[in-house]
Amino acid sequence: MLTYNSKDWFKFIFFFRRSDTVRKLLPLMIGMGLFTWLIAWLELKYLLISEREVIKNVSMMHTMLTFVISMLLVFRTNSAYDRWWEGRKLWGALVNNSRNLAIKLNAMLPSEDKYNREFYNKTISIYANVLALHLKSELTKFELDEKDHPELLQLESGKHLPNQVASLLFRRTNRLYEEKKISGDQLIILNGELISFTDICGACERIKNTPIPLSYSTFLKKFIFFFVLTLPFSFVLSLQYWAIPVVAFIFYALTSLEVIAEEIEDPFDGDENDLPIMKIAENIKKHVAEIL
Amino acid sequence: MLTYNSKDWFKFIFFFRRSDTVRKLLPLMIGMGLFTWLIAWLELKYLLISEREVIKNVSMMHTMLTFVISMLLVFRTNSAYDRWWEGRKLWGALVNNSRNLAIKLNAMLPSEDKYNREFYNKTISIYANVLALHLKSELTKFELDEKDHPELLQLESGKHLPNQVASLLFRRTNRLYEEKKISGDQLIILNGELISFTDICGACERIKNTPIPLSYSTFLKKFIFFFVLTLPFSFVLSLQYWAIPVVAFIFYALTSLEVIAEEIEDPFDGDENDLPIMKIAENIKKHVAEIL
Amino acid sequence: MLTYNSKDWFKFIFFFRRSDTVRKLLPLMIGMGLFTWLIAWLELKYLLISEREVIKNVSMMHTMLTFVISMLLVFRTNSAYDRWWEGRKLWGALVNNSRNLAIKLNAMLPSEDKYNREFYNKTISIYANVLALHLKSELTKFELDEKDHPELLQLESGKHLPNQVASLLFRRTNRLYEEKKISGDQLIILNGELISFTDICGACERIKNTPIPLSYSTFLKKFIFFFVLTLPFSFVLSLQYWAIPVVAFIFYALTSLEVIAEEIEDPFDGDENDLPIMKIAENIKKHVAEIL
Amino acid sequence: MLTYNSKDWFKFIFFFRRSDTVRKLLPLMIGMGLFTWLIAWLELKYLLISEREVIKNVSMMHTMLTFVISMLLVFRTNSAYDRWWEGRKLWGALVNNSRNLAIKLNAMLPSEDKYNREFYNKTISIYANVLALHLKSELTKFELDEKDHPELLQLESGKHLPNQVASLLFRRTNRLYEEKKISGDQLIILNGELISFTDICGACERIKNTPIPLSYSTFLKKFIFFFVLTLPFSFVLSLQYWAIPVVAFIFYALTSLEVIAEEIEDPFDGDENDLPIMKIAENIKKHVAEIL
Amino acid sequence: MLTYNSKDWFKFIFFFRRSDTVRKLLPLMIGMGLFTWLIAWLELKYLLISEREVIKNVSMMHTMLTFVISMLLVFRTNSAYDRWWEGRKLWGALVNNSRNLAIKLNAMLPSEDKYNREFYNKTISIYANVLALHLKSELTKFELDEKDHPELLQLESGKHLPNQVASLLFRRTNRLYEEKKISGDQLIILNGELISFTDICGACERIKNTPIPLSYSTFLKKFIFFFVLTLPFSFVLSLQYWAIPVVAFIFYALTSLEVIAEEIEDPFDGDENDLPIMKIAENIKKHVAEIL
Repeated sequence: MLTYNSKDWFKFIFFFRRSDTVRKLLPLMIGMGLFTWLIAWLELKYLLISEREVIKNVSMMHTMLTFVISMLLVFRTNSAYDRWWEGRKLWGALVNNSRNLAIKLNAMLPSEDKYNREFYNKTISIYANVLALHLKSELTKFELDEKDHPELLQLESGKHLPNQVASLLFRRTNRLYEEKKISGDQLIILNGELISFTDICGACERIKNTPIPLSYSTFLKKFIFFFVLTLPFSFVLSLQYWAIPVVAFIFYALTSLEVIAEEIEDPFDGDENDLPIMKIAENIKKHVAEIL
Repeated sequence: MLTYNSKDWFKFIFFFRRSDTVRKLLPLMIGMGLFTWLIAWLELKYLLISEREVIKNVSMMHTMLTFVISMLLVFRTNSAYDRWWEGRKLWGALVNNSRNLAIKLNAMLPSEDKYNREFYNKTISIYANVLALHLKSELTKFELDEKDHPELLQLESGKHLPNQVASLLFRRTNRLYEEKKISGDQLIILNGELISFTDICGACERIKNTPIPLSYSTFLKKFIFFFVLTLPFSFVLSLQYWAIPVVAFIFYALTSLEVIAEEIEDPFDGDENDLPIMKIAENIKKHVAEIL
Repeated sequence: MLTYNSKDWFKFIFFFRRSDTVRKLLPLMIGMGLFTWLIAWLELKYLLISEREVIKNVSMMHTMLTFVISMLLVFRTNSAYDRWWEGRKLWGALVNNSRNLAIKLNAMLPSEDKYNREFYNKTISIYANVLALHLKSELTKFELDEKDHPELLQLESGKHLPNQVASLLFRRTNRLYEEKKISGDQLIILNGELISFTDICGACERIKNTPIPLSYSTFLKKFIFFFVLTLPFSFVLSLQYWAIPVVAFIFYALTSLEVIAEEIEDPFDGDENDLPIMKIAENIKKHVAEIL
Repeated sequence: MLTYNSKDWFKFIFFFRRSDTVRKLLPLMIGMGLFTWLIAWLELKYLLISEREVIKNVSMMHTMLTFVISMLLVFRTNSAYDRWWEGRKLWGALVNNSRNLAIKLNAMLPSEDKYNREFYNKTISIYANVLALHLKSELTKFELDEKDHPELLQLESGKHLPNQVASLLFRRTNRLYEEKKISGDQLIILNGELISFTDICGACERIKNTPIPLSYSTFLKKFIFFFVLTLPFSFVLSLQYWAIPVVAFIFYALTSLEVIAEEIEDPFDGDENDLPIMKIAENIKKHVAEIL
Repeated sequence: MLTYNSKDWFKFIFFFRRSDTVRKLLPLMIGMGLFTWLIAWLELKYLLISEREVIKNVSMMHTMLTFVISMLLVFRTNSAYDRWWEGRKLWGALVNNSRNLAIKLNAMLPSEDKYNREFYNKTISIYANVLALHLKSELTKFELDEKDHPELLQLESGKHLPNQVASLLFRRTNRLYEEKKISGDQLIILNGELISFTDICGACERIKNTPIPLSYSTFLKKFIFFFVLTLPFSFVLSLQYWAIPVVAFIFYALTSLEVIAEEIEDPFDGDENDLPIMKIAENIKKHVAEIL
């Protein structure tokens, strides 16, 4: 992830970074331009359709559907953003719970108990690390797929790692309790942080392995495709060759929304828009070490 | 459920999967096309209505209502999606709580206590299974219906199964406490996971047995029906025979939203868009066995 | 409440159930039609206003306000639906907590303690019943009204019944604790369910006795009224007698939204759209009896 | 607050209550009418601008901005409503917690302990009262203002009263625990209710002392003002003197939304739209006395 | 932050405060005006483009995209406002938890234990202060940036201060428990407040260091820029020199939304729209001292 100054309009407008939708859509925009040019040539030069022909009124369809396509796309981007933000919240909660667990254990364990301090120091940081790797794995993504994935079988590293680390943490804490190193009251107040790890892991897996319903996604793409592809037919009659940049820009504006949504709906992938989960895991390591 | 690559536009646009609304709506789209053709023939060839007649202005009504119908449909789909996503969250919570319960019991029960370990290993997985079956049942769907359903009586399998399994889990845990195998402090930290099962079950039942208010659903369908059916009257005067694909496409765009909403508002049915609850139940079984 | 098959379009479109807004609005739709006919006759036959007169441009006002009235109405219906759905969630929570309380007590109370088992079995079911009646009462609705309601005084049945039942439940549980029939740890894990009853009751009362702000409700109705009533003035010039069904349909589409909102914003009333709280109370009774 | 029957359209449309925006905006509506009349006279009689002049196309600006101003106003009203409803929920939670605290203490305190019963009976009711007064105070409103308010200093009644009452409640409860009148387990289950008082107080203060960001509020008012003031320039060319009622009505429709938002965003003020917090405090008193 | 009277329209409309978007955008509005004047001169005087040329139809593009740009901007401002309001809620929660912790410790600590009372009195207030400074720091903002920031290294003050203070608080509380000055039950009920500090800190850091996804932000700015810059081409043909103020006003209305969003999405910066966190920290100090 890149931290940027949102007020620097100049950079935003005239620079084209890797994640910029202009760069991604440029070939398609040129394609749309050529397509529009073709339609323009056909209608204006070959078929000689005059501006008064009914074909021009196809724009009635576009006018009627502008609302619905705009709303769908804006809502699509918003709900992808909600997933992204939920992912960020979950990793924020992981930070909080790692810190709180360290703060509590620091107070409860005698300062000379190097053995247990070392253990928690390492294991808490490892959890964040293991979870980050777990979320980047293809195995996690296809966990709920109805098709088999023989190509992923070789990746299968045996057990579910975050669960194993969480289990280690809980076992050690319970042993401290059984050995009377911490009291029952202290066990109770450690419980919240200990279960949070698995809750966060499960919620991240949910975001990762559950795309939006297939039929919704299919419909949206078919709708955009057909909407944009029929634009030139009426636009070239009103705008002649000016229709080329106009259609390309409308294509850019609408399709960007879908493209951005695709980018951010899986926030654990590691491209420029995604959540910096490795960085967060590093910070957890640093802060836990500071405390414990 | 099918895990798909949302960036593969080509497949989305040119393939027509089973859950694609194009496939579902095709007969009706052809019907709308024929109806539009009929109106076109009537107005243009038989009644010879000219473009300047007032009937053309019926489009004023459509313009005025486009906005409200678009918002209604987009909100309809969104609120159906919210139910679907809530269902997914609930099953995610079931995963988390099953894992946490297993992790805790693994730490608390002595490793030689095969008897109890076996019990929890089995019973936690069974809960997910029993709940999945309970949610697919017609009985659950019609639980709150004001009409009687004599045809479902033979299905009635006696008691409410998920409740019985949850009761088993709690009884065993309470017995462990009474036999001092776990302490009171440990009982308290097991409580959260134990009650979560019944909470999740109740929330899933709510999604299953409470459709959106009848009068809202009725209104929406009557509104779409009348809106689309009156479109050809004015469109054929502006677009002549081009109105046929135009009306069919508008019909497709609007009706798809309602059809998708109908599909996903009950997320426990097992079709291509629905939540893979059997698969999740399997995963719970696998992960709990790994831990315990 | 009626459980329906949302995919049965035919029934939705051609049947007119009791809660259908078409049935409710039919007299007013006929009224709007007659009013439009009157305006049409006046403008077209009596005043002989031509299509080129400025009065036709009144439609500019309608165009400009279409957005805002559509959004207001759709949001109005959505926020009424949110209340309805919150009501459903609260009753779902009542189901969950009743079941969990029964499951826990079943595990904690010795199976021969018929006396206490009977008590909880009855009292938990009674709570749901008493709450359902409490929410249907006019007294509850006017609890926060600034005007006095002498006509309701005779209904006043003394004390607040749900509170009394909740108090009974808590007293008995506390007595079990004092008599050492349940331990302190067990008391702590029963606490969550016991307080939930009163929390649910208070939240339902809030939905019942707090309508949306008066000035908002007033504005919305005045706005719809004036918007629809001025429609015919410009529409009859464009549509002549076709304006009659057109205005009636626009009236139906817009007013239905407000009418549906009025129906569902108080979800505890017992009409076809309302929540089946008596049925839920019955189910609680059945399931608690199964468990305990 | 006034409890009203939302289905009584007649009253809503033809009565003009104190909180009706028509009454509040009437002078301004008349002003807008006169201004429009002035512009109409200027353009039509004095400058003799014909309908074909470019000034008429200023309506292009209004068309383009209609949507954004509509959304802004509807969202503005909705977010003000969300504050109002959050305020209502908080006071609902105060009711619930007061009742639950009373129910619990009733069970825990021996019935002959008049001294403590009396104390809680009084102090719980007093909290609601003190909080209601605290929220109506100007001091609370300007607590976070960056300007000094010497005129309010004389109001400063020393300490923060709700905090003092909450502190009393907690001190007494802790004393009961130290005197072994309640056990540690009972203290733990009383904790939730005791901290809720201060949480509710803080949340109400937040709603009271944090208006929406200044620059947003400023922008919205400037936008409405300029939008409505430029309407007559193009409307009088299309509508002539009919523009007078039309502009006045558009002004009414748009400005009402902002006026309603201003009314309800501070829900603790005591006018007709505000929350009946004194009434709720009374009810708390009544119900707590019934229980304890 | 400035507490203002939202009903004082006069001040809002005719005063131009520091945070007013009119002041910020004035140079750009003048720029847009000059640009429009240039286009007007070019098209009307130099190229002599008549009103009937196709270039005028470029407005079709603007009409089609008005809806999507309006929604994007309104949603953008709303989601920035949500961050701002979440920040306010978090600081409200800090107030509540500081108060509750003080209230509880006041009850639990013997009144003669000046040593511990002093400690909590100071440390609770210090936490709010330290957090406020931590959130204003550039280091916090760039914590997750993928680029290195050598220029900030000198600021690095060693350890994470809020964590250190939270650790102090927990250590002292745990020592009180070990020294039997507070019981285990009391430790349990202090736990909620103690962990809340770190949770609030982490959530504020999240708001501070995670801007909205880069590609979304880039797209929005490019879209606004291109949309507004192409407006004059068609508007000068319809409006001639009137296009100058019209384009400037549309520019003001749309860009203000983005500018306001940029302002409020980081609520911890200290300008006129930002949250008064230093003031809240002062209030916490005052109220904690009153209680303890």
